[in-house]
Amino acid sequence: MDDKGAKNTNLLGNLQLPEGLKELSYQELEVVAAEIRELLISTIARTGGHLAPNLGVVELTLALHRVFNSPQDKIIWDVGHQSYVHKLLTGRFSRFSTLRQLGGISGFPRPEESEHDAFATGHSSTSISAAVGLAKARDLSGERHKIIAVIGDGSMTGGMAFEALNHAGHLNLDLIVVLNDNEMSIARNVGALSAYLSRVRMNPAINRLKEEIEQLIQGIPGVGEKTVRYLERLKDSLKYLVIPGILFEELGFSYFGPVDGHNIRQLVQVFRDAAGRSGPVLIHVLTKKGKGYLPAEEDPLKYHGISGFELPGGRPRERSGPPTYTQVFGETLLEVAKKDERVVAITAAMPEGTGLLEFARVFPDRFIDVGIAEQHAVTMAAGLARGGKKPVVAIYSSFLQRAYDQILHDVCLQNLPVVFALDRAGVVGEDGPTHHGLFDLAYLRSIPGITIMAPKDEDELREMLHLALAMEKPVAIRYPRGQGQGENKPGEPVLPGRAEVLCRGEQVAIFALGPLVAEAEKAARRLSLLGIGCAVINARFVKPLDRETILYWARRVPHLVTVEDHNLAGGFGSAVLELLADEGVQETRLTRLGYPDRFVEFGPQQKLRDLYGLNAEGICRAVTGQLLPVADAGSGR
Amino acid sequence: MDDKGAKNTNLLGNLQLPEGLKELSYQELEVVAAEIRELLISTIARTGGHLAPNLGVVELTLALHRVFNSPQDKIIWDVGHQSYVHKLLTGRFSRFSTLRQLGGISGFPRPEESEHDAFATGHSSTSISAAVGLAKARDLSGERHKIIAVIGDGSMTGGMAFEALNHAGHLNLDLIVVLNDNEMSIARNVGALSAYLSRVRMNPAINRLKEEIEQLIQGIPGVGEKTVRYLERLKDSLKYLVIPGILFEELGFSYFGPVDGHNIRQLVQVFRDAAGRSGPVLIHVLTKKGKGYLPAEEDPLKYHGISGFELPGGRPRERSGPPTYTQVFGETLLEVAKKDERVVAITAAMPEGTGLLEFARVFPDRFIDVGIAEQHAVTMAAGLARGGKKPVVAIYSSFLQRAYDQILHDVCLQNLPVVFALDRAGVVGEDGPTHHGLFDLAYLRSIPGITIMAPKDEDELREMLHLALAMEKPVAIRYPRGQGQGENKPGEPVLPGRAEVLCRGEQVAIFALGPLVAEAEKAARRLSLLGIGCAVINARFVKPLDRETILYWARRVPHLVTVEDHNLAGGFGSAVLELLADEGVQETRLTRLGYPDRFVEFGPQQKLRDLYGLNAEGICRAVTGQLLPVADAGSGR
Repeated sequence: MDDKGAKNTNLLGNLQLPEGLKELSYQELEVVAAEIRELLISTIARTGGHLAPNLGVVELTLALHRVFNSPQDKIIWDVGHQSYVHKLLTGRFSRFSTLRQLGGISGFPRPEESEHDAFATGHSSTSISAAVGLAKARDLSGERHKIIAVIGDGSMTGGMAFEALNHAGHLNLDLIVVLNDNEMSIARNVGALSAYLSRVRMNPAINRLKEEIEQLIQGIPGVGEKTVRYLERLKDSLKYLVIPGILFEELGFSYFGPVDGHNIRQLVQVFRDAAGRSGPVLIHVLTKKGKGYLPAEEDPLKYHGISGFELPGGRPRERSGPPTYTQVFGETLLEVAKKDERVVAITAAMPEGTGLLEFARVFPDRFIDVGIAEQHAVTMAAGLARGGKKPVVAIYSSFLQRAYDQILHDVCLQNLPVVFALDRAGVVGEDGPTHHGLFDLAYLRSIPGITIMAPKDEDELREMLHLALAMEKPVAIRYPRGQGQGENKPGEPVLPGRAEVLCRGEQVAIFALGPLVAEAEKAARRLSLLGIGCAVINARFVKPLDRETILYWARRVPHLVTVEDHNLAGGFGSAVLELLADEGVQETRLTRLGYPDRFVEFGPQQKLRDLYGLNAEGICRAVTGQLLPVADAGSGR
Repeated sequence: MDDKGAKNTNLLGNLQLPEGLKELSYQELEVVAAEIRELLISTIARTGGHLAPNLGVVELTLALHRVFNSPQDKIIWDVGHQSYVHKLLTGRFSRFSTLRQLGGISGFPRPEESEHDAFATGHSSTSISAAVGLAKARDLSGERHKIIAVIGDGSMTGGMAFEALNHAGHLNLDLIVVLNDNEMSIARNVGALSAYLSRVRMNPAINRLKEEIEQLIQGIPGVGEKTVRYLERLKDSLKYLVIPGILFEELGFSYFGPVDGHNIRQLVQVFRDAAGRSGPVLIHVLTKKGKGYLPAEEDPLKYHGISGFELPGGRPRERSGPPTYTQVFGETLLEVAKKDERVVAITAAMPEGTGLLEFARVFPDRFIDVGIAEQHAVTMAAGLARGGKKPVVAIYSSFLQRAYDQILHDVCLQNLPVVFALDRAGVVGEDGPTHHGLFDLAYLRSIPGITIMAPKDEDELREMLHLALAMEKPVAIRYPRGQGQGENKPGEPVLPGRAEVLCRGEQVAIFALGPLVAEAEKAARRLSLLGIGCAVINARFVKPLDRETILYWARRVPHLVTVEDHNLAGGFGSAVLELLADEGVQETRLTRLGYPDRFVEFGPQQKLRDLYGLNAEGICRAVTGQLLPVADAGSGR
């Protein structure tokens, strides 16, 4: 396919969708598939998004909508970043250019966007559980529609997918799991299940089986040397018969496959067969990520989620300026690991996203990618720490939510030296509410014994990582998606539980966290022009708080402001309030800036911060707004 | 065995443990096993604890310590409630009478208690992850000891156990998983895995395999009708060969078993064989819960975790007085379900513990026990809600931690009407820090859109459950372990987001939550005798807060007190502080009572509350202590 970006969607644009698909010939469906690919490429080149996963499921999605009747039949897209084709086929063709834009259509399934989006997804491995719930609800209501969960082989690694498979097999509900096996989720897949899926191999059980059969057959009267060739055939037959699907069959599923995921006719046939079966069915579909766009086929990792690229050619848009926090984290960890052989790096299927590719190359033995398995990652890290190592668990803030219990119960309760590197903390941008890291301070802060830091810039991240590894206890460092501040002035050294006073002032003290420290400094400069003296403090630690510094300013200035790239409920500002209350400080007033008590939408990262006043201007407004009511604060309300 | 409670531990008491076990004859080991059983029964009859699980692993534990060398070799007990025998054999024989008592030895493995406790456990399904971490650390350090995870078949249902199996198989680490298959964890096991383990069945794959082999053999020259009998043998052989262990073999484990878990000689043999193998090994051991004590064998559920019982006879100690919150929850849900057929009850392996046995009996179709699979339970509930049902997920506060991400991402982000019934919120008592429900308000409160309630007594729980089911959005109700208040006065009806003012006063307003409301009332009565007028407000809602009532009192009285059976960081008091700060209320002072920023130990529930001043006396102390510094509050600190 050429990639000149033209939108040749003559057939697609004139169909009544999704019903119209049922009338087309297979040849016409191929044309539609090609049109969809062109549209995906030209749109995502501009908007950014998940290109390779969607290119891989074009035929799969067409076949699903040809066989099933959405929205009566419910299709659940695990993770959901592969739902663009589904969106094009279900009423979002004309708005597709607004993909992932503020106010546009989401990059993930959203029931509020369309009745065809049966269940909202974003995090991995939820689809089979949702399907079980929907199927049970259907049966209790005496309805008869179909429920289909489409899940990648990578997502299958997540424990809750297994919990759901295990339960679905037990309940014997009518539901269809489409296993989209592209031998690669976001990174190379991990785990024995993946090995099981990707190669047909001879394992010990099969070997034992073969030996026993050999003995038995030799015992059959009249069977002599002539049967040797037949025996060989039998062995091969066993290999073929036993391996595919038995894992799923053992869990109570009927297994169909493997099926060529780019052959619409075959897909339609197997979906029709499956639809006629009762009980849980698993259809194993083989697809190729990036299918139909050569740059993406050749490097599906780069084109998994991409910020936009040039057409023709597909060259990803270059980023200039300072390095990302992710890069700085990866480089620093590698440096430390060269000096301290106890350091072990752990990722959950995000070696590139967390900046650990080079670490993995240099220290393959000390790099562990557990696959999509955050719970296991954290408790395994606790085991490593108990065994004398210094594990660093690098997981996005939002995904670490899945290991909350393990952080509390396996790491902190044992006070083990595990370092958590929470990349993508704060708003992440276009991926939206399922991916924003806006809750980590709240869920971590209540756990006894954990230290929580946030660097004001990429240099401080470097320092904090060194400190965290020296602290010999549970530590979390949260830092945002995207580039660092660049050209940073050297600051005071990072010391445990100590904030950094960046400038002094007598009217307001602003305690800012992470990337918002720079905004607080800008705000202070603007406010000084208005004659308002602001102290700016780089909080650095959310736990333990720098009690001394906070109390000093609380007793010195009439107004405090906290600024955090986090939800307000239970966040950093809330921790400061607790300290002030516990110390009986009543003379100062605290304004907390952060995200309100609602889920934050998707859109460009900076636009979202602006929208919620988390920038210099918003801080200025909060400070000046705070000054006004103070005038009549004495009037005994 | 008789159960007269005598401690005949002549042999056990005189051994150098655990090494001494290696010198004993198998006959002597049997004697030791009998002595251990007597000691378990007589001790737990008095202290309460996990009787049946420990009776089931006596031989298993003896065999482990006979073959392996703890503490060099590391034994990890999944959940850990079955570690009593291990404790008896590793230095805690003489202190065993202090089991689960305040300051005594824990009912769970605790590395700070003994170097033989290789990893702390409490929640389910963590042991294989910990073993993977320990094994990886060992290999990186060039050490050679053995790592053994002992996990029940129930715990195997938990997704993280699968994540760990999948990863261990991939890494090909030397480690041993002992699958303690007692065909029952706490309740009857759930899931296809359980079915797989508990019966040898013919599944479709096997049937296909058999047909193919039949065809092949019929094609072999010289094989005629005489071979029919051999063919039958072949079929049976296949059944035998294919089924046991293939699921684990497919995941990369060498499978041994099944082994009789009460035959020490066989266990020792298989452990020795396994110890000689490289790569991951799974040993499938069959045990009987409650083994050797007839009442427990006959009703292992009742004797799973028990509060103490009478000897001889084993009659559980009777409880008099008001019903438990658990009972009231179960009865109320059943009542509601009779009127509203959309109500579906969900438990994660705790049908009895959550009071749902009768519900399950009356509405088997609308009762779902997912097994130990909290993540799946919550997302499945989201699916049920999306399908028009009213799911009620009853999970202990501490265990719900494992589904934090699912509550946020699958339920609240879609604003689905799922009701969470958090039993065992607050301190639970003897099970200790792994089981206390002291974090739920913090981890739930920061999630947008959820409503959080806590009833002051069992009657209010009833009302709140009715209200929650009528609200059509995510709601959590937290209530404590144990009995209700009894003889409750009828209160004001429970209205969304409204607190209940129980008495008025002009000096202090106490906002109390849940079972501590009664203590606040007691405190107010005592304080009134000292001439201190206290308002007592039953907060009822942690989210949304009753802004109006809180602000009314905050502007009326100089002191507020919040009282909660929860950690202070991020809890109810913290929410009140946020409200006051956001409203600019500075005139009042707030004292927060709750648990400090540390893990709370084990001991009797009321003793723990007393220890942390969460009783009438503690509230009085806080109020009077607060009154004193007020005198000089004006002295501008």
